[in-house]
Amino acid sequence: MPVTHYKVTLMYDGTHFAGYQVQPHQRTVQGVVEQALAKMAKVEQRIPINGSGRTDAGVHAYGQVISFDFPFFIAAEGMRKALNSLLPLDTQVLACEVVPSDFHARFDATGKRYRYRVNLDYYTNPFRRLYTGHWKWPMQPELIEAAIGDFVGTHDFTSFAAAGGSIENKVRTIYDAKVTVDQTQNELIFDFYGNGFLYNMVRIMVGVLLEIGGNRRPLHDIQRLYQVKDRRQARLTAAASGLYLMQVYYGDGPADLK
Amino acid sequence: MPVTHYKVTLMYDGTHFAGYQVQPHQRTVQGVVEQALAKMAKVEQRIPINGSGRTDAGVHAYGQVISFDFPFFIAAEGMRKALNSLLPLDTQVLACEVVPSDFHARFDATGKRYRYRVNLDYYTNPFRRLYTGHWKWPMQPELIEAAIGDFVGTHDFTSFAAAGGSIENKVRTIYDAKVTVDQTQNELIFDFYGNGFLYNMVRIMVGVLLEIGGNRRPLHDIQRLYQVKDRRQARLTAAASGLYLMQVYYGDGPADLK
Repeated sequence: MPVTHYKVTLMYDGTHFAGYQVQPHQRTVQGVVEQALAKMAKVEQRIPINGSGRTDAGVHAYGQVISFDFPFFIAAEGMRKALNSLLPLDTQVLACEVVPSDFHARFDATGKRYRYRVNLDYYTNPFRRLYTGHWKWPMQPELIEAAIGDFVGTHDFTSFAAAGGSIENKVRTIYDAKVTVDQTQNELIFDFYGNGFLYNMVRIMVGVLLEIGGNRRPLHDIQRLYQVKDRRQARLTAAASGLYLMQVYYGDGPADLK
Repeated sequence: MPVTHYKVTLMYDGTHFAGYQVQPHQRTVQGVVEQALAKMAKVEQRIPINGSGRTDAGVHAYGQVISFDFPFFIAAEGMRKALNSLLPLDTQVLACEVVPSDFHARFDATGKRYRYRVNLDYYTNPFRRLYTGHWKWPMQPELIEAAIGDFVGTHDFTSFAAAGGSIENKVRTIYDAKVTVDQTQNELIFDFYGNGFLYNMVRIMVGVLLEIGGNRRPLHDIQRLYQVKDRRQARLTAAASGLYLMQVYYGDGPADLK
């Protein structure tokens, strides 16, 4: 059977990766997956994969999606098991499908869901420093609850995107944004669903919300930040360790709920 | 002011330690704490500490207790902050007290509480492989609930202790033993309170309970194991990664509830 096209859903602990995208002399998610595929196919060159988007060093994923051509046919369940046996333990294939050859993990994505976890302990928790951001000052979650709705809708996110990107259109739509207080873990959990996210956008949004909850910024400062289109006024970028790419949607998720 | 005696409560992520006890050329909890203290005191030699007991490589602690003499007086809160600023991020001082010079973290301990977490996902979860044990086969927690009470009371734990230890008396008292099902995390959480634990004892107890829950052992096999006094018949030792030393009691805890 000829070249086969796969869609694969990956979970990874981002701690020991220099990010998703291949870089020389660095351990990356794309790198370990492409190596595992080459080993399976018994070829010298890497087998290139397309990811739904990059994640930075230290950023985690519960549902990153990749797509790729493989030189011969393996049933989806066999591909899942073979990949898992070849991948390192901090990377796990959760699902695998054979898909039409025109499916593309990035271009076909219609929405994404991100989560951001913030530990509120007064000290650096040894078990969570790699899996949460950290806010050790006074916090009023009800202020964040009152403000976070300002992110919902279609807005120009220039103030919330790292400068220097090549993307000119900074307008994105957020379908849902919410914060949950996890009393047991002493954590704030932020969830954002949208049609697309600019570079560092979730981490900058969280930085602004934390300053609102910490009473360092007016309640509806987000509205002002849309107007000023100035990334410096958004100030903080929350740590990579708290960010999780939860799910990528392909015409089957919140992105359809417009 | 002269030599001062301290009691310190430590939290640590055991992943990157070769265990609690100092070993040549290995990173250990005792080693990093003794180095930090020497740095604080500006002395060349290590400042020796006494721990409530050893933990193995990969075993975690929420409440390990150590005691030591320090060459001069620092107020307890100052000692806590200074130690935290010198310790690596996977080790955290939670509490610090100045105590009478005859206090000894090991000899004065009257009880300990351990927790063991078992992940029940069918796959190796990248986020939990270092923080839980793993059981990926069928599991009936109600069997464990019915059996775990057999551990409560005073018993000869010879079958539940790693062979080769120098301790001859293998009789210990367990004051409380319980299992909780965490549906959200898909985990079993075991809690054991007792007056003392032999080498690998909690991990072997959990191994037996998992086999009972997995229908690989009769419900009341624990009673038989007390009689046979044969560690081989207890079979499994659950992975170090799931074990947490939660609390050490000094005449102030469950150990008084006899």
